[in-house]
Amino acid sequence: MIQIDYPGREQWPDIVRRPVMDTEHLTEAVRDILRQVREGGDRAVMDCEARFDKVSLSSLAVTEDEMQEAERCVDEELKAAIRLARQNIEAFHAAQRFEGKRIETQPGVTCWQKAVPIERVGLYIPGGTAPLFSTVLMLAVPARIAGCAEIVLCTPPGRDGRVHPAVLFAARVAGVSRIFKAGGVQAIGAMAYGTESVPKVYKIFGPGNQYVTAAKQQVSLRDVAIDMPAGPSEVAVLADETADAAFVAADLLSQAEHGVDSQAMLITTSESLRRAVVDEVGRQLQRLPRREIAAKSLEHSKLVCVADMDEAIGLTNAYAPEHLIIQTADYAQVAARVVNAGSVFLGPYATESAGDYASGTNHTLPTNGYARAYSGVCLDSFVRKITFQEITPQGLRRIGPAIQQMASGEHLEAHRAAVTVRLQRLAAEGSPAGDNPQD
Amino acid sequence: MIQIDYPGREQWPDIVRRPVMDTEHLTEAVRDILRQVREGGDRAVMDCEARFDKVSLSSLAVTEDEMQEAERCVDEELKAAIRLARQNIEAFHAAQRFEGKRIETQPGVTCWQKAVPIERVGLYIPGGTAPLFSTVLMLAVPARIAGCAEIVLCTPPGRDGRVHPAVLFAARVAGVSRIFKAGGVQAIGAMAYGTESVPKVYKIFGPGNQYVTAAKQQVSLRDVAIDMPAGPSEVAVLADETADAAFVAADLLSQAEHGVDSQAMLITTSESLRRAVVDEVGRQLQRLPRREIAAKSLEHSKLVCVADMDEAIGLTNAYAPEHLIIQTADYAQVAARVVNAGSVFLGPYATESAGDYASGTNHTLPTNGYARAYSGVCLDSFVRKITFQEITPQGLRRIGPAIQQMASGEHLEAHRAAVTVRLQRLAAEGSPAGDNPQD
Repeated sequence: MIQIDYPGREQWPDIVRRPVMDTEHLTEAVRDILRQVREGGDRAVMDCEARFDKVSLSSLAVTEDEMQEAERCVDEELKAAIRLARQNIEAFHAAQRFEGKRIETQPGVTCWQKAVPIERVGLYIPGGTAPLFSTVLMLAVPARIAGCAEIVLCTPPGRDGRVHPAVLFAARVAGVSRIFKAGGVQAIGAMAYGTESVPKVYKIFGPGNQYVTAAKQQVSLRDVAIDMPAGPSEVAVLADETADAAFVAADLLSQAEHGVDSQAMLITTSESLRRAVVDEVGRQLQRLPRREIAAKSLEHSKLVCVADMDEAIGLTNAYAPEHLIIQTADYAQVAARVVNAGSVFLGPYATESAGDYASGTNHTLPTNGYARAYSGVCLDSFVRKITFQEITPQGLRRIGPAIQQMASGEHLEAHRAAVTVRLQRLAAEGSPAGDNPQD
Repeated sequence: MIQIDYPGREQWPDIVRRPVMDTEHLTEAVRDILRQVREGGDRAVMDCEARFDKVSLSSLAVTEDEMQEAERCVDEELKAAIRLARQNIEAFHAAQRFEGKRIETQPGVTCWQKAVPIERVGLYIPGGTAPLFSTVLMLAVPARIAGCAEIVLCTPPGRDGRVHPAVLFAARVAGVSRIFKAGGVQAIGAMAYGTESVPKVYKIFGPGNQYVTAAKQQVSLRDVAIDMPAGPSEVAVLADETADAAFVAADLLSQAEHGVDSQAMLITTSESLRRAVVDEVGRQLQRLPRREIAAKSLEHSKLVCVADMDEAIGLTNAYAPEHLIIQTADYAQVAARVVNAGSVFLGPYATESAGDYASGTNHTLPTNGYARAYSGVCLDSFVRKITFQEITPQGLRRIGPAIQQMASGEHLEAHRAAVTVRLQRLAAEGSPAGDNPQD
């Protein structure tokens, strides 16, 4: 871990800089696989599965038998945990339902927004050794609440051709029934273009390795929307002398175990807290199965002492962390000054793990400093806000002259004429300034 | 104009297909200019202005003198129109202010969202013969309402080194004071990376030609967020026999005058309406200054007769138009069935020009079928919804065991341990199941 003492603001850009993620070298390989899937459909996906996931498939769709088998395989305690998490995620996301107001901007001119679900969405759940059933909940629960008509999930099978049962169970609990055994670039391609089995979707969600990230970027240029750009997971802990060192250390390690490129930063006004955290990290690290990964990640972890809380907040906002844990005496006041972060955890008992799994907030969050411009996934991510305007004759009389002025000012005379023809009709009809929209 | 009669659904993909927009051939040129700006700052931008806009600049920033000069140059009627438009746009967007609810997903676990403005945004306003002062309003007004701390506007100057006065006046009315004389790829680069004069921003908004589009795509991969992918403007008119042919024709022409690649489609259940529209288009076209452009655009315009309103609505949703004008007897019922569109215009007096300039809705909308997955620009576009969770000891006792289960299920033991250390502390302290968050 790297200790930094009272850096001047001119050092902040170096402190907050993320490692450069260069997917350029993958571009050709990814483009190639995407093209194969676009042209070859299911067969191409299955070829890729054989090549990359070393699995021989005769079909892509998960069957009802497999769903039921999965339900039998998951132990009851984990099932109960998944159900509780789902309930909390649903409660939080259901409260985000949008109700647009009708605004009469001028008499006779009424405008409103309506949230309409994206018809077809695709969820990508990476495979590998750790089955990310929590991500299934985080993406599928809001998709259902939003009312997306088609929710497609792709996840790579193991070499035995099966999907991890907890992933299937979580999908069932979340209400997703169209699940396909496909991973990596080929899964992204299948959902972006559609194949014989896999429906084409309009937006793809979900994490993944650098190949998946590069694939999502490529398909997002023209074919499909994506949730957000990706990057290694990260946490910043903002702490004063009242913070609990054991808790802080546990939170840093929790992030570090994700992968060697994970980011874990401590920003504190207390040198003694930092010392205690260093000790605790050393102590707790030994007990972790993934300690080698965590240790490697911690090598580039920064533990920064700053002079006061203003600087701590300033540096935190400059870092724009994916997850921000605030462990200070006055965390509510500090929270009010957060400008750039994905998800914020308040108080000693708000461990990041809570948001990762079960508090109800979403864990699909902007990394890599993208928190400066992106929100995490939420109910909004699954809808479009379509605008509507209803204009009466009175309304057009009211704003028509202004439209004509502006259209002419922009040299768009047909835009002007579209108003003129209507105003002339109203003048010819000698219609009253009535407000019946159906006139 | 292409007349299509009662197409079967299998023909719909061809009908709704957009022309392929290939910016691949520009990629290298654009990448090159972006690199020059990233490395050369202001000087590189001014070199590009000399090369591409044929203008010699000694500095980029618009001065207060230029702002005041501009105010004197704009005629009073246009000023009044711009002010009225601003007022309506403000009324509609201010009503979109977000108030997140606090949700106690479990006792002791409270979650909420807070909308926090993006600190720095960049607005690009293309130049050329038509000064798009309306776009200034559409982007700057919500940026101000959202509370973005830094709002930067770039627009190319004319060869005399001056920006069109109406653009500057609209910027002043909308509250934007940092305006820079830069266009094209160099403007996008300046805002994406920052130069000596131009602040780096976190998100870039605004329309542009294919070079600007390609530049926005490239910088959006890593450096900055963008509002949405771009494409030629488009309208679909959904009409029955009660529609007014002169109004429909005027609306199609209004779109066609934008450019030869603009899209204008009519979807109607009435052959006689279509005949009348064809006649009206012929009549009205002659009166337009931009008739050659409009005529060229209309060559690929489709006028489709369908059997009934169900098909009309189905085809319209399949097209996913940027603008949708509904001229039917029962437009409110038809409107309720819209699934894919950017902005919808209801009733005979709701000309698209109204939304383009002054109804209050935003005119920066998804083209190219992107309406299937993207919203138009609105207040949301200028904020992030940051999530917060506050968890008491009681709350962690409640959800902690579930988190532990799930973390172990995903083989993330440090995530489990971050809960365990806290639950053990609570057990050791023998603390009551109190609900004081500050415990």
